[in-house]
Amino acid sequence: MHTFRDSRPTLEAVAAHAGVSRATVSRVVNGGANVRAEVREKVRQSVEELGYVPNNAARTLVTRRTGAIAVIIAEPERRVFADPFFAQQLRGISRELSDSDMQLLLILLEQQKDYERIGRYLSAGHVDGALMFSLHGDDPLPGIASRTGLPAVFGGRPGWPGAEDDPGLLYVDTDNRGGARQAVAHLQERGRSRIALINGPLDQTSALDRLYGYCDALGITVHEKDPALVAQGDFTAGGGERAMAELLRSAPDLDAVFAANDLMASGALRTLRTRGLRVPQDVAVVGYDDLEPAAWSEPALTTVRQDVEGMGRIMAELLLGRIGLKPGAAAPAPVVTPASLVVRDSS
Amino acid sequence: MHTFRDSRPTLEAVAAHAGVSRATVSRVVNGGANVRAEVREKVRQSVEELGYVPNNAARTLVTRRTGAIAVIIAEPERRVFADPFFAQQLRGISRELSDSDMQLLLILLEQQKDYERIGRYLSAGHVDGALMFSLHGDDPLPGIASRTGLPAVFGGRPGWPGAEDDPGLLYVDTDNRGGARQAVAHLQERGRSRIALINGPLDQTSALDRLYGYCDALGITVHEKDPALVAQGDFTAGGGERAMAELLRSAPDLDAVFAANDLMASGALRTLRTRGLRVPQDVAVVGYDDLEPAAWSEPALTTVRQDVEGMGRIMAELLLGRIGLKPGAAAPAPVVTPASLVVRDSS
Repeated sequence: MHTFRDSRPTLEAVAAHAGVSRATVSRVVNGGANVRAEVREKVRQSVEELGYVPNNAARTLVTRRTGAIAVIIAEPERRVFADPFFAQQLRGISRELSDSDMQLLLILLEQQKDYERIGRYLSAGHVDGALMFSLHGDDPLPGIASRTGLPAVFGGRPGWPGAEDDPGLLYVDTDNRGGARQAVAHLQERGRSRIALINGPLDQTSALDRLYGYCDALGITVHEKDPALVAQGDFTAGGGERAMAELLRSAPDLDAVFAANDLMASGALRTLRTRGLRVPQDVAVVGYDDLEPAAWSEPALTTVRQDVEGMGRIMAELLLGRIGLKPGAAAPAPVVTPASLVVRDSS
Repeated sequence: MHTFRDSRPTLEAVAAHAGVSRATVSRVVNGGANVRAEVREKVRQSVEELGYVPNNAARTLVTRRTGAIAVIIAEPERRVFADPFFAQQLRGISRELSDSDMQLLLILLEQQKDYERIGRYLSAGHVDGALMFSLHGDDPLPGIASRTGLPAVFGGRPGWPGAEDDPGLLYVDTDNRGGARQAVAHLQERGRSRIALINGPLDQTSALDRLYGYCDALGITVHEKDPALVAQGDFTAGGGERAMAELLRSAPDLDAVFAANDLMASGALRTLRTRGLRVPQDVAVVGYDDLEPAAWSEPALTTVRQDVEGMGRIMAELLLGRIGLKPGAAAPAPVVTPASLVVRDSS
C-alpha cells in the first residue's frame, strides 16, 4: 500500500543533491560543528529545495528531548468535556507550556486497556514528561510514571498506597479541607443547623478532604457524621440531582446543602426547584470550584473559589523545572494553593 | 539539575549485566534475528531485572512506526470544550483508534505561534498520522501536512486554495447542503414565509454549505438572499443570542429561524424568550447537529441530525487504511455521510 511517508525526501537524497556525504548532512541538520560555512550553506539550500524534514526520532536519540509533554486526565472523555474544571486546568497548563515552546499532547482514558497502551507510549521516549490529574485511588498511572522514570507532576494530593514514602513526588493541590470548612462555617453563620453534604467519589483525595472539612466545621469526626445528611455524588450535575433527591428523602428537615463541586450543586438546585423548595429561604446551597456554572445558575451560587487555571500553570512550571527546562522555576516541592468563599444568592 | 530520566537503565547497563555486546542487546530488543536462543534469553532476563525500557526513538528509526495518531482541532480550547460536537467526534475517533491499539494525542490550537510548533512536532516523526478538523479558510494545517508528508485525513470538505487539485486528499464530511435544505423546506411546509438564517463563520465549508442549502430551499441564489434575514453567528450560544437580537431588529416580521448549529439555536431561543416571543407559535426554530443541547432545550429543538460520532470513526478508519494499519478498511476516498431532519417542539 502506498503511504505518504514513503514520499519524504531522505537524508541520502539531500546528500546527493548537495554533493556531500550523508554524515555531513546529518551534522548540519543536527546543528553540529566542524562543518565549513560554505558547505553548511549548500546543505541548507538542498534541504530547503527538496523540502527535507529531518527525522527527529534520530535527533531525539542525540538530544534526548522531544519538546512534548503529555497531559493525562484519568476520566472518560464524557466527563472531561462536561466539567469546565478540566478546560480551565488545561488552559493554565497550555499557556505555561506554550510560553516555553513545548507541545501539549492531551491523552484521555476511556477503558482499562487504555492504561497499557499509554504505559507503552510514555515509556517510548516520545515525551519529556507528563502531567497527570483526576487520579483515583487504585490508579495505575503513578506506577507507570515511576517504572518508566518519566518526570511527572500530579494534580491533587496523591492518595495511592506508597505515595507518602516518595519524597520526590511532585503535586499541586488546593486546600480542599480548609475550603470545605469555610463553606460549612458560612452556612452555620447563616443560622442553618441541618447541613447536608453531597460528596464526590471517595477514591479521590479532593472528595475525601472536602468530607474532612465538612466534619471539621461541624466539630465531629468522620465516623460521627449523620448518614442521613451525607449523599454520594460523582461530580456530575446528574449525580447532584439524584443525591439531592435522596437527601430530601433521608433528611426532609434539612435546611442547607454543601455540594463538593459546582456541577453537583447545579443538579441539586434543579431538584430543589422541581420540588418547589425555595433557595435560599428553604434550603441554602453552597458549591465548590467557582467555575462558570456557578455564576450562571439560578439563583447565583455561593461557592468556594480555587484558582484552577493557576494550578494548571504551577503544575506545568514544576514539571519544566524538574526536566531542567525552567531553571528559574519555583523550588521543586508540592504546592497547595488557597481556597476562599465567594458569597452569592444561593445562601 | 537531577532529572528522573537519568536514572533509567541504559542499553550499556543491560549489555554489562548480560555479559554480551551492546549490539547484541540492541538486536534482541528490536526483535532482530541472528541471535542464539540462549543469548536472547539471557538478555531478556537482564532487561527484566534492570527494568530496562528500550529507547523507542531508536526503535522508531527502524520500524518507522510510533503507534500514535495526532488529532488536531483548529479551535481555541474554550470552544472545543463548550461545543459537544467535538467531544462526540473525538469519541468516534477514540473508539476506532483504541480498537487498533493506537494512541490518540489531542492537540489544540490557541494562538498563531502554536502552528509553527505543531508543524515541528508533526514533522518530527512522533506520530504515524494526523486527523485535522474544524479548519478555517486560510488554515496552515493542510500545508503542514503536505510538507511533512504525514498521512492525514480532514474533517469537513476542504475549502483551502488548491484542495481541489489534490486527488489524494482524504476527508469526511456530512451533507451540509442537503441538511440545510431539509430544515428550511420543513419550515416552509409549516407555512412559514419569512425564514431567517443564523449562519456560522463563512471561512468554514460547513457554514458555507448550509448557506447554499438555505438558498436552495428558498429557490434563490446566494447573491439573491435578503440581507435583513441573514445574520452572522460564530457557532457559539452567545453568538446565536446576539444574531437573533440583530434579526429581530432587521426583520421584525420574521416567523422562523434556521440556525446553523444547535448551540446558536439555543442562544436564539434564549433571546426569543427574553423578548416574550413564543416558540413555535410566533417564531419557529430549527437547529443543526442533534447534540445534547437540542433535546434538553425548552422547547425541545427540531434539528438536523448528523452522525458526528460515526464521522469521527470513519476519519480514523480512513487514516488507518492509508497508513496500512487497517488493510480491510473502506477504499481510501472522501466520504460524505447523510443528514436527516429530527422534528421536535420548536417548529
